[in-house]
Amino acid sequence: MKIDRTALERALQDGAGASADLFAQLRAPWPQGGVHRDTYGPGEQRAHELVRRHGEAMGLESSVDFAGNLVLTWPGRDRAAPVWITGSHLDSVPEGGNFDGAAGVVAGLAAVAALRQLAFEPAGDITVMAIRGEEASSWYQGDFHSHVGSRAALGLAQEAELLRARRISDGRSMHELMRAAGMQPEQVRPGHAAIDPARCKGFIELHIEQGPVLVNRMRPVGLVSAIRGSARARRARCLGEYAHSGAVPHELRKDALLAACEFCTRMDEAWTDARTAGKDLVFTVGRFFTDASVHSITKVPGEVSFSIDLRSQESSTLHEMCALAQDLAARISQRRSVQIDLGPFNVSEPAVMDAALLDSLRTGSAALSLDALVLPSGAGHDAQDFARAGIPTAMIFVRNDKGSHNPDEAMDMQDFLTATGLLAWQLTQ
Amino acid sequence: MKIDRTALERALQDGAGASADLFAQLRAPWPQGGVHRDTYGPGEQRAHELVRRHGEAMGLESSVDFAGNLVLTWPGRDRAAPVWITGSHLDSVPEGGNFDGAAGVVAGLAAVAALRQLAFEPAGDITVMAIRGEEASSWYQGDFHSHVGSRAALGLAQEAELLRARRISDGRSMHELMRAAGMQPEQVRPGHAAIDPARCKGFIELHIEQGPVLVNRMRPVGLVSAIRGSARARRARCLGEYAHSGAVPHELRKDALLAACEFCTRMDEAWTDARTAGKDLVFTVGRFFTDASVHSITKVPGEVSFSIDLRSQESSTLHEMCALAQDLAARISQRRSVQIDLGPFNVSEPAVMDAALLDSLRTGSAALSLDALVLPSGAGHDAQDFARAGIPTAMIFVRNDKGSHNPDEAMDMQDFLTATGLLAWQLTQ
Repeated sequence: MKIDRTALERALQDGAGASADLFAQLRAPWPQGGVHRDTYGPGEQRAHELVRRHGEAMGLESSVDFAGNLVLTWPGRDRAAPVWITGSHLDSVPEGGNFDGAAGVVAGLAAVAALRQLAFEPAGDITVMAIRGEEASSWYQGDFHSHVGSRAALGLAQEAELLRARRISDGRSMHELMRAAGMQPEQVRPGHAAIDPARCKGFIELHIEQGPVLVNRMRPVGLVSAIRGSARARRARCLGEYAHSGAVPHELRKDALLAACEFCTRMDEAWTDARTAGKDLVFTVGRFFTDASVHSITKVPGEVSFSIDLRSQESSTLHEMCALAQDLAARISQRRSVQIDLGPFNVSEPAVMDAALLDSLRTGSAALSLDALVLPSGAGHDAQDFARAGIPTAMIFVRNDKGSHNPDEAMDMQDFLTATGLLAWQLTQ
Repeated sequence: MKIDRTALERALQDGAGASADLFAQLRAPWPQGGVHRDTYGPGEQRAHELVRRHGEAMGLESSVDFAGNLVLTWPGRDRAAPVWITGSHLDSVPEGGNFDGAAGVVAGLAAVAALRQLAFEPAGDITVMAIRGEEASSWYQGDFHSHVGSRAALGLAQEAELLRARRISDGRSMHELMRAAGMQPEQVRPGHAAIDPARCKGFIELHIEQGPVLVNRMRPVGLVSAIRGSARARRARCLGEYAHSGAVPHELRKDALLAACEFCTRMDEAWTDARTAGKDLVFTVGRFFTDASVHSITKVPGEVSFSIDLRSQESSTLHEMCALAQDLAARISQRRSVQIDLGPFNVSEPAVMDAALLDSLRTGSAALSLDALVLPSGAGHDAQDFARAGIPTAMIFVRNDKGSHNPDEAMDMQDFLTATGLLAWQLTQ
C-alpha cells in the first residue's frame, strides 16, 4: 500500500495534540528545571507506566521483558513475518531534558497512530519499544557498561555487571533495584535475548540531534550514517622537571607544559589534515592542567595531565590517529627531554548504520520532500547495540537547539512531526 | 698595592674554617630540613646578631641603619674616600637553604679577613652589609614590594608599604614588627637614604646561582651581566564555548584549549626566533588549566586560564615580546572564534650591571685564572636596587647545585672560596 504524502501529513497533524499531551505528562513532575528519570528508579518507572497506559489505550499489545523494557505491538497481518522495531530510551540524565530518548518513543506511538488513521495494514508486527537504562552511567558507578536495557534485551549484557553497578545516591546495586521492581536480572546473560534478530526487519531509532549541525544547516531532519566510535586516553601525562622560571635557560629546561601544548597543536594539525583528506574525525582535549598544588607563575611546569577523546565513523581513522598520537608523543618527548605518556587508548568501534535501510530512508526523504541531511552521530545510542546484534539499524535525527542532557534542549514540535512522518513512511516499507 | 694570587689563595684557605663555622652557626637552629630566617622576625634577627658579633670580633666598626640593615666597616686610610660596599641579605624563604643570601655576607667578611691577613691597606672604607627583608614577599602579604631593607637604605621605599605588609602567620604589620625590634620605620621614605650613592665606589653582591648554568658548564664562578627584567601576565584567559566532544563538528567549535595551546606553541616558536637572533629571553607558562569544576573528557573546553612570565636582560626584548603576544592573541582569537585575553603585562625593567665594574671583574678573573662565565641573573637581587640608585653595581655568582629556596641547595666550600677570592681582588681596586 502506497502512502499518500498529504494524507500522512494530515494524520500526523491530527495526532499532534496527543503527542504534545504525552510530552507534557512525561514532563509534569518537573515543571521547572531538568527532568530526573532515573534508570531503574521512580523517575524512569513513572515514564514507563505512562507510556504503557498510552499504548494500551491505543489498543496495542503490551508486554515487559526481563530487563524491564516495555514492548507495545501493533500486530501485523502475519504474526510470523519480520518485525519492525522502533523506539528509544525513557530515562534521562540528572537535570536532563524532556526529549533526549523520550522523543523516539513518542514518535513511535505517533507514527503508529497516523498509520492506523490511514487504515494502513502492516504485513508484520510493528513494535514500539521503550528501552531502559541508556543513561545508566549517569546514575550508577562501578565497572559496568551503559545501555543496559538494549544490551540485556539483545543478549549482550552480563548479570555480573548489574551487581557491580551501584546507584550513586545510595550504593544499592542495579541488580537489587531491578528485582525490587519485579524484573528478572538473573536472566541477563550473553546470548539470552528477548529480541530475536532473525525475526527483525529492522530497528529505527528517532532521537533529537545532540549537536548543532541541523540547526546550523537549517534542516529539520537528519539521517545517521554511523555512530562514531571513540578512542580515549583518560589519564595522559607529560612529565618534565620543575625549574625556576627566570634562572634556568632554555637548553636546560624539561618544560612539560610547552611539550604538551605542542603535542595538542600537532594533533590539531593532523585533525585538519584528516578532514581535508575526507575523513570523519573530531578531536577533543577536554581536561588539561598543571598541578595546582605545585604550579606557580615563576616555575617551569614539571607535570601536565590531560585527556584525549577521538571520535570517528571510521574504525581505520581512529586507529590511524591513535598510532599518530603515540608517534608524536614519542618524538616530542625525545626532542624536548620530557616523557609524554598517553596511557592506553580505550577504543570503542564505530557502529555503521545499515546501508539498505539508509538508502530506503533517503528514498522516503525524497518522497516526502524532506531534504534530510546525512550526518554522523557523535554520541552513543541504543541503536548501536541493535546494529551490533546484527539487526538492520537506522537513526533519524530531529533538529534540536541548545544541545542535550540539559533542561534547555529545544525541539520544535513541527520538526518532530516531520521526522515522525519519515519514520511512519519507513514502517510501511 | 698589587695582590699576589698565591698569597691571596693561602689567606682565603686560612680563613676557610672561620667561614665554615659561621655557616654552621647560621644553620644551627635547623639541623635538619630548611632554614627559617623570617624577615623582621626572630630567625632573621638571630642571624644579624650572629654576624654582628662575628664582625665586631674581627674589629670592624658596627652600626645598624633605620631599617635594621647591619653595616660592618673596615676603615680606609681616607674616611672620606669613596666606599666599596659588599654584602647580601640574611633572611631566607620558609623552608629555605642556608646559602641564598647569607653566602654574600659571609664572603664579604672572609674577603676582608683575607685582605687584612695580607696587610692590605684600603684607600677608602670597605663595608660589609647584611641586608634585611630581601625575601619579605615570602613572609608577608599585601600591597608592598620586596627587597625592603635595600630599598629603604637607598631611599627607594615608602613607609605606607610597611603598614600594608602583613605577616602571613599573624597579620601583624611589618611597620609594627620593625618598631618592636627597635628600628625606625617612620624614617622610611623616598629620598631619605642611609647610603649616599655619591660616596660609593660600587656595590658588589656575591650570591649562589639559583639556576643550573654554572654546574652545567663546569665553571665555579659567574659574573652577572644583568638582572633580567620580567613581563608577567598573571591571569590570562582564553574563552570559548563548552560543547559536546562527539556531536559538535570542527567548524562549529569554539575550542578554548586548542586555541590556548596554539598560542603557547607560537610563543615558544617566537622564543626560539628571539634566541636565534641573539636576544636574551626566557618564556614560561607556569600555570595552565581547564576549569576543574566543569571540564570533562567529553566536553570541548569553554575556558582556559594561564600565566605568562617573560624575562630578559633587554628592555626592548621584553616589550617586543609583549607586543608579539598581544598580536598573536588577537589573530588566534579571530581565526578560532575564541577570546584570548592576556590582561595587562606587569613589566619590571632589567637592571644592567655596571660595564666598567664588569670589565674590572673580568680582569680579576683572568688575573686569578678563574675563567668566570658571564651570564644573566634570572631572579631578582638586592643588587638591582643599588643599580637603580645609581651606584656602580656587580654580582658574582657561585656555582650551586639543586637550585635555591630549598634545603637541598648545594654550594661547594671550595667554589665559595674561589668566588670570594675574586671579590677580595675587586675590593683592592
